[in-house]
Amino acid sequence: MLEFCLVGAGFIGPVHAANLATHPVARLRWIVDLDVAAAEVLAAKHGARATANLDDALADAAVGAVLICTPPRTHAGIIERAARAGKAVFCEKPVDLDLRRVDECAKVLDAARTPFHVGFNRRYDPSHRALFDALRAGEIGRPEMLVLTSRDPEISPPDYVAAMPYGIFYDTMIHDFDMVRWLLADEPVEVIARTSCMLGEKDNPHRDPDTAMVLLRMAGGALVHINSSFRAVYGYDQRIEAFGEKGMLISRNRQPTTLERYGADGIRSDGLLRFFIERYAESYVRELDDFIRALADRRLPSMGLEDGPRARVFADAGGPSARSGEPVILR
Amino acid sequence: MLEFCLVGAGFIGPVHAANLATHPVARLRWIVDLDVAAAEVLAAKHGARATANLDDALADAAVGAVLICTPPRTHAGIIERAARAGKAVFCEKPVDLDLRRVDECAKVLDAARTPFHVGFNRRYDPSHRALFDALRAGEIGRPEMLVLTSRDPEISPPDYVAAMPYGIFYDTMIHDFDMVRWLLADEPVEVIARTSCMLGEKDNPHRDPDTAMVLLRMAGGALVHINSSFRAVYGYDQRIEAFGEKGMLISRNRQPTTLERYGADGIRSDGLLRFFIERYAESYVRELDDFIRALADRRLPSMGLEDGPRARVFADAGGPSARSGEPVILR
Amino acid sequence: MLEFCLVGAGFIGPVHAANLATHPVARLRWIVDLDVAAAEVLAAKHGARATANLDDALADAAVGAVLICTPPRTHAGIIERAARAGKAVFCEKPVDLDLRRVDECAKVLDAARTPFHVGFNRRYDPSHRALFDALRAGEIGRPEMLVLTSRDPEISPPDYVAAMPYGIFYDTMIHDFDMVRWLLADEPVEVIARTSCMLGEKDNPHRDPDTAMVLLRMAGGALVHINSSFRAVYGYDQRIEAFGEKGMLISRNRQPTTLERYGADGIRSDGLLRFFIERYAESYVRELDDFIRALADRRLPSMGLEDGPRARVFADAGGPSARSGEPVILR
Amino acid sequence: MLEFCLVGAGFIGPVHAANLATHPVARLRWIVDLDVAAAEVLAAKHGARATANLDDALADAAVGAVLICTPPRTHAGIIERAARAGKAVFCEKPVDLDLRRVDECAKVLDAARTPFHVGFNRRYDPSHRALFDALRAGEIGRPEMLVLTSRDPEISPPDYVAAMPYGIFYDTMIHDFDMVRWLLADEPVEVIARTSCMLGEKDNPHRDPDTAMVLLRMAGGALVHINSSFRAVYGYDQRIEAFGEKGMLISRNRQPTTLERYGADGIRSDGLLRFFIERYAESYVRELDDFIRALADRRLPSMGLEDGPRARVFADAGGPSARSGEPVILR
Repeated sequence: MLEFCLVGAGFIGPVHAANLATHPVARLRWIVDLDVAAAEVLAAKHGARATANLDDALADAAVGAVLICTPPRTHAGIIERAARAGKAVFCEKPVDLDLRRVDECAKVLDAARTPFHVGFNRRYDPSHRALFDALRAGEIGRPEMLVLTSRDPEISPPDYVAAMPYGIFYDTMIHDFDMVRWLLADEPVEVIARTSCMLGEKDNPHRDPDTAMVLLRMAGGALVHINSSFRAVYGYDQRIEAFGEKGMLISRNRQPTTLERYGADGIRSDGLLRFFIERYAESYVRELDDFIRALADRRLPSMGLEDGPRARVFADAGGPSARSGEPVILR
Repeated sequence: MLEFCLVGAGFIGPVHAANLATHPVARLRWIVDLDVAAAEVLAAKHGARATANLDDALADAAVGAVLICTPPRTHAGIIERAARAGKAVFCEKPVDLDLRRVDECAKVLDAARTPFHVGFNRRYDPSHRALFDALRAGEIGRPEMLVLTSRDPEISPPDYVAAMPYGIFYDTMIHDFDMVRWLLADEPVEVIARTSCMLGEKDNPHRDPDTAMVLLRMAGGALVHINSSFRAVYGYDQRIEAFGEKGMLISRNRQPTTLERYGADGIRSDGLLRFFIERYAESYVRELDDFIRALADRRLPSMGLEDGPRARVFADAGGPSARSGEPVILR
Repeated sequence: MLEFCLVGAGFIGPVHAANLATHPVARLRWIVDLDVAAAEVLAAKHGARATANLDDALADAAVGAVLICTPPRTHAGIIERAARAGKAVFCEKPVDLDLRRVDECAKVLDAARTPFHVGFNRRYDPSHRALFDALRAGEIGRPEMLVLTSRDPEISPPDYVAAMPYGIFYDTMIHDFDMVRWLLADEPVEVIARTSCMLGEKDNPHRDPDTAMVLLRMAGGALVHINSSFRAVYGYDQRIEAFGEKGMLISRNRQPTTLERYGADGIRSDGLLRFFIERYAESYVRELDDFIRALADRRLPSMGLEDGPRARVFADAGGPSARSGEPVILR
Repeated sequence: MLEFCLVGAGFIGPVHAANLATHPVARLRWIVDLDVAAAEVLAAKHGARATANLDDALADAAVGAVLICTPPRTHAGIIERAARAGKAVFCEKPVDLDLRRVDECAKVLDAARTPFHVGFNRRYDPSHRALFDALRAGEIGRPEMLVLTSRDPEISPPDYVAAMPYGIFYDTMIHDFDMVRWLLADEPVEVIARTSCMLGEKDNPHRDPDTAMVLLRMAGGALVHINSSFRAVYGYDQRIEAFGEKGMLISRNRQPTTLERYGADGIRSDGLLRFFIERYAESYVRELDDFIRALADRRLPSMGLEDGPRARVFADAGGPSARSGEPVILR
């Protein structure tokens, strides 16, 4: 059994806690949260111990791994403390918005020689993964075009938006940038972005772009299109399409039920799953399982610290391209 | 917190254990299995206690409910012991293949005034449930025809088949008979069945029917068709179609992934989910939750002991109709 | 060029006229209709000659084939006149509702040694045909179950209903009976039918059944289900499903457009094509082409006079089974 | 009846001839082709007159309209001759690759005051049209993003490719540019294009781009993405997706049949319709009908001479943007 310390009882924390509860070789031992009452509620449910003090848990020799799902600005510090305590670390993305801070973290992790996994959960979606496998198996030959649709049902919280201009590239498209790198095993040489503000003042008071299209040219020659919006009223729209010399692969959306209603006005079915918690529920399970297996097999976790900054490069090019109207050439 | 004693560590037991582990107001306290080692493995995972002796768990005042997932022939006895100990009972179907034994059980449950739920999990499938809700909401008006497709990927184990001739009605279609009663809130007045043996000697050595079609006339006038097979090579085929004066509702199948592969030879996608564990995973979660909520709300569980025998009536008519070639008139 | 005489300018007549107009090796030479004005309108459009007198056209040596699409009660007489004039004959089904009359017709056709084709156009639907081809190619091995859905958007005209009790078997299911024979290359040994009147007095004043389910046992062992209704508000519902040892084939419905509308209330698409003129438009083209090619190749037309009565056997069993509640054993 | 002179008996000519043959108020009177034998074959089929000399037909006062489907370089001359003869003109696109020649043509048409329709048939595809209607009806509110997929199964003939560099913009995407203008009722202010050569030497000996992505910014603020390829092995891939504040509309692809094959290796269905003749068959019928109705109603044809050059503006920007790497700003 691998004993976990979960840091952050809110939001995605209970999802990870439940996934640990049903994992065959993992167990939740500590819940750490400054809001100790929240930690206690979750701990009681899972027979774990609660504390507001991370050191309590890090001092516990039985703890083998730390799972971090606190707000992003606290990630780097917790990673470093966990690494210094010799624990394996699984951290939700991003490590930090400041790339220098990420570098510092990397040094601590290297020095501690501790396994580290950054959470880009979409790579574990069964449909996206099946597309990846089919690509790698050569089913469509060389990929020539990639089209990603990535639309959220709502805009990021105002404090996110205020913290980072062109947040649509950092909050949402960052996942797509990671998908592009992962699917094509290639890096971009050119980023072209165009954005607009389509939401009203009420939904988007900061007037940061809420709609975006990106065109990428990859080193290997493939062309990539990504489009995003913060207002998909029909649910969380998450599609990937890869086109190649031998055909096309599409990872389509999912709906809550398969009910079809035939009436005098046509055929109706459900909208899409509402947001990432629903759509990527299986991804969280599989991602955590992959991390646990990596530790058990003494292999490197599938995604390391560097995957964040590498996807970040695309995002950092998006704002300048959209603002200047010019392509951003990389490398 | 509602503390559970789970009886039966094999097969579906771990599924229920995991569902209890993630349920917000329930907890797994005891695992009972004659194979105490199996009980211990599951207990260790979930922080529960293991025993081979059901009385250990029934004597524990903290236990509020007993969840029975042992082989069918042991159900009635365990139900009675649990009822006499004053525990609420959730039991996988069937209570017993001998209807007199079910009657005895009913008397014990009545005397003990203990809540009892029999597990017809399909009623909790989100898509079937959405169809039920739409029917009840009058979306298609009065239902006129119901068409159920219910095909397993493999034949029931030989000992099942040997125990009960025309097992296809008892092992598989029993669920469809329950769906018909539930969806239409009506009972049949006539059952016509035809069967055949389509599998070879190797797969079906007992030559009990492996393929069946049933035509039902319901008291309210609706016509119903059900078809079943023990050899759907493309996965577990589970569809419901309701036709009425204002339209049609279809609860369609589900596939493991949404990947579509376009090639020179056409478009391919996944086969269907393999079998009931995969297809009805959500149903088990929702069914258990409904039972727990019923106890919390002090209402009767949604399905009682009588639901088994009532669906059984259809099954008991299937064999005679198929054998004699005559319709069986009920009531 | 094969020159045609088209008898019957109404209803399906213009469809056949247009199909002749675009056929590479056929030409429309005469339009015959008692309503000579209607014949003239159609003739003017296609550069053909119009007459109210069939003999005018039959006397024309240039005419090679007669295409009959008048009301059913006139079919037999026209067939015989055309046959005696030595023309090849294509006739919409049925030849006659009276089977003795059909026999007489057969004798005349035999004596005249003239090619004859009866129009069961569904065999030419591209999707049904693809299912047929896949079956014949052994894609699902031996067919074990066949499920046909065959629902009209409206009830047959009152005079049809008055002319023939249990008209649902003769007007609509007759096509499905033909499909069963054609797809399985087999004949039924048992017919079980159940019907009901679900439409109100206004739509179904004769109270002849408007809803039906049929269960067939075929000589080769396959089980068949057919369901029909005269009130599918969502369009013409025409599906065929064949299940066998190696898989399943489904010929699905078609919609007028492929538009999908995603909104806050889910996903909507078109209802089904409205009725047979729309759904089977391609079938009429292909059927006529097949007849013309048969003549050109000097082979027998694909469907002969006997195909009508053979499908009729099923229909004749439907009423008695529905009325008596007993199965009808054939052979 | 409106009598037509069809110029060009090859390729798309027979399609238009057949559509005229079945149109209720039009008739084919002349077929003109330098290859008079080809004209005669088609004329014989449709009861029309054949000639190699356009003047024969233009001199015929009964001719009301000329339908031009000869090779593009001959279009402008024939348009002018037909206009001067006072005939209405329907011409396949483009009027001419040289925009000055188009201007000359425009002057002749203006002087002659003759109705003129240029054939962008995609506007008449029933699914694209339904999308257009839904957009205009405000179903998704203001359109914010448009995504067009437009992939051919094969590269344009070598002489096309040689005649016009960046032919992918002129041969294929020109239709998409027209769709963008039509759907959004808006013009672009910026065109960004990227292309690549993905086909081998054998299929693409001129090494003109065979794969392209375009990003457009429209005057009204909408963002548009188009992607094209000359090698879609699974058929002609023609999709339109419009995203707006209230939802999304998708005009999906079509398949030859609706057959689904379920087997041990998953579910298979047909590839897409092969190419434009099959996919846009209904569009040609409807387009011609619209032209005929416009003449009958004495209204302007739906598409005029200016629609070609306006779509051409996008194409003319594609090459420079792809070559220089810079966006092309329009207006």
